[in-house]
Amino acid sequence: MTQPFNADRFITDRLRAIDASGIRKVFDLAANLKDPVNLSIGQPDFDVPEPIKQAAIDAIERGVNRYTVTQGLKELQAKVNSQIETEFPNWKGTGYGNLITSGVSGGLLLALLTCAGPGDEVIMADPYFVMYRHLVTLAGAKAVYVDTYPDFQLTAARLEAHITPRTKMILFNSPSNPTGVVATEQVCKDVIALAEKHNILLLSDEIYDEFCYEKVARPSGKPRCPSPASYSPNLLFMRGFSKTYAMTGWRLGYTVGPKAIIEQMTKLQQYSFVCAPSMVQVAGVTALDTDMDDYVERYRQKRDMVVQKLGGVYNLATPGGAFYAFPEVPKKLGLSATKFCEKAIANNLLIIPGSVFSNRDTHFRISYACDNQMLERGLDILLELAK
Amino acid sequence: MTQPFNADRFITDRLRAIDASGIRKVFDLAANLKDPVNLSIGQPDFDVPEPIKQAAIDAIERGVNRYTVTQGLKELQAKVNSQIETEFPNWKGTGYGNLITSGVSGGLLLALLTCAGPGDEVIMADPYFVMYRHLVTLAGAKAVYVDTYPDFQLTAARLEAHITPRTKMILFNSPSNPTGVVATEQVCKDVIALAEKHNILLLSDEIYDEFCYEKVARPSGKPRCPSPASYSPNLLFMRGFSKTYAMTGWRLGYTVGPKAIIEQMTKLQQYSFVCAPSMVQVAGVTALDTDMDDYVERYRQKRDMVVQKLGGVYNLATPGGAFYAFPEVPKKLGLSATKFCEKAIANNLLIIPGSVFSNRDTHFRISYACDNQMLERGLDILLELAK
Repeated sequence: MTQPFNADRFITDRLRAIDASGIRKVFDLAANLKDPVNLSIGQPDFDVPEPIKQAAIDAIERGVNRYTVTQGLKELQAKVNSQIETEFPNWKGTGYGNLITSGVSGGLLLALLTCAGPGDEVIMADPYFVMYRHLVTLAGAKAVYVDTYPDFQLTAARLEAHITPRTKMILFNSPSNPTGVVATEQVCKDVIALAEKHNILLLSDEIYDEFCYEKVARPSGKPRCPSPASYSPNLLFMRGFSKTYAMTGWRLGYTVGPKAIIEQMTKLQQYSFVCAPSMVQVAGVTALDTDMDDYVERYRQKRDMVVQKLGGVYNLATPGGAFYAFPEVPKKLGLSATKFCEKAIANNLLIIPGSVFSNRDTHFRISYACDNQMLERGLDILLELAK
Repeated sequence: MTQPFNADRFITDRLRAIDASGIRKVFDLAANLKDPVNLSIGQPDFDVPEPIKQAAIDAIERGVNRYTVTQGLKELQAKVNSQIETEFPNWKGTGYGNLITSGVSGGLLLALLTCAGPGDEVIMADPYFVMYRHLVTLAGAKAVYVDTYPDFQLTAARLEAHITPRTKMILFNSPSNPTGVVATEQVCKDVIALAEKHNILLLSDEIYDEFCYEKVARPSGKPRCPSPASYSPNLLFMRGFSKTYAMTGWRLGYTVGPKAIIEQMTKLQQYSFVCAPSMVQVAGVTALDTDMDDYVERYRQKRDMVVQKLGGVYNLATPGGAFYAFPEVPKKLGLSATKFCEKAIANNLLIIPGSVFSNRDTHFRISYACDNQMLERGLDILLELAK
């Protein structure tokens, strides 16, 4: 007989350095709740619009079921490029590259493995999207956190204090998960200028761009969310379809940016994701022609409800986008966010403590991606808890 | 003005160490061919069977379009486990883990990042599936190649000579891409015993298992391809849906194996793939109930045609599975495989030189995943070229 098999010894230090998601721990805590008031969900409460569903179905029926080329279907790439150049005329003729990815998450993994390694520093706002922290660890680089409390703007001034000769990338996320805060045009303009000045790669993760209630004019086309891409094409620019069109399970996004980097990310996609799902890529073309204004207007109303009900009771940076808000636990309660969220769960309300997204444990994340009735019940519980 | 933007400086050494696929280079060479005889395709020439398409369509229609849990839909996991335990009764009650992945490629990336790192050696057969080489590099480990010419069996005796204290994993692929060779039952039995004896993790990539023309009896159920899993559950066992059901663009596979490893791979999936496409997971349940015997029988006939036409003219290890054959360039021609394939392309035939999969440049890969007429034309060109 051989010695007993010990699977544990095969796990690399790289994997041991990555925590399981704190969100999952909250879900475990809440597993025993019956019909909780759930303000923790990170995806829209509506279904994929019919024309987009139909496009995916048609693709399956007519046999678009084989590998696509690694970089993505030509029609989808062309559509993305055309929208980019309408929104950002400064990109025209710059020879940028385009990669269709398996969600923005897929793009983030490829970008970080391609551009960040041992010895590199990657700057991000604190609070941050959970995946950033772990992907930087996976890439072997060092995460550097910029405290952005209480207004959650990742300004050039705040960033500059953290730049060292080792700084390789800045992860910029507007509208932000978990705060819902939208970067102002001035912040966008200053941050890309700062990155270019210091030869740092800016990665602008705009997965929530459609859910923006502070849109600004564009040279051509509809008002859109402020973006550093307005001021330069020298950045990795990512958008997704998952949140905008409620197709989180479909795994589709894209990255446009400097050709040399996109080519390397494409090479890595060959050996990992291979391609984004074929029928979903076809549906993506239809999605980009689908007007989501009515959906977004309904989410703006939910946002307003959150601000109106909690304002005055909770300190709250105005959430200008996404479907999150990030209020502070009232100081008079003398509770950490973790303790406060445990109390909320004891009151049948599911929310996420700030410690999951931050080195502080003072705030908590609400998602208002749910129906108005549940949202109102949740906000009422929060008002009770603040007493 | 800031200095000119140099995207190249952001690329990590990790990415620079990975080559673009050699297959792609051949495709580039062939880009000018009009209507080539294409024996280079790595996917079936039929479409997804109707019931599987319909299952995906139903899932989209009824709104299974959101994130699934990271590890995969419960129904699909249950179905996989049930088939595993029918085929390998020795797995019952061992508490193995299960992860639904975005194709076998997704599983390979997760497994290598989870289990292989700097200082580790990963052994694979030469010739090898191209992705293995590059994923080992990506993980920062060292690839160790076992020459398996001319019969392409990765035997325990051949393996043992390459084992060192640093050996962490063995990548085992039967039926094999690029050779089509199927490991015998004895080889499977010896290899898993060797791995267990030396505390090495065996990864058995069985993506082509359904396309096997040398199936053997199982304790219960239908004859199946020989597998190391018959002899122990102490391995990472991967199968896919892409090749079997012609859904290469749909990205679905699974890994079962030691729970401690599967849990770490699941954690990493949270921060990368997130989940396999939702509607495809639903269709996967239907796929596992779909009998593919007729399709496989047609591929067996194609395999026979290859062996009959080329046998005697080309040295050829019997391809017992997948849809590949790996003949030797006749020595009398005095050509490297690369030169031979260039000559083939000049004769309108697209095949892949062995150097893409091997440290030798003496053989070439044929795929017979095409209609019989094209296959016959291709084989005729090969007979001409051998003269």
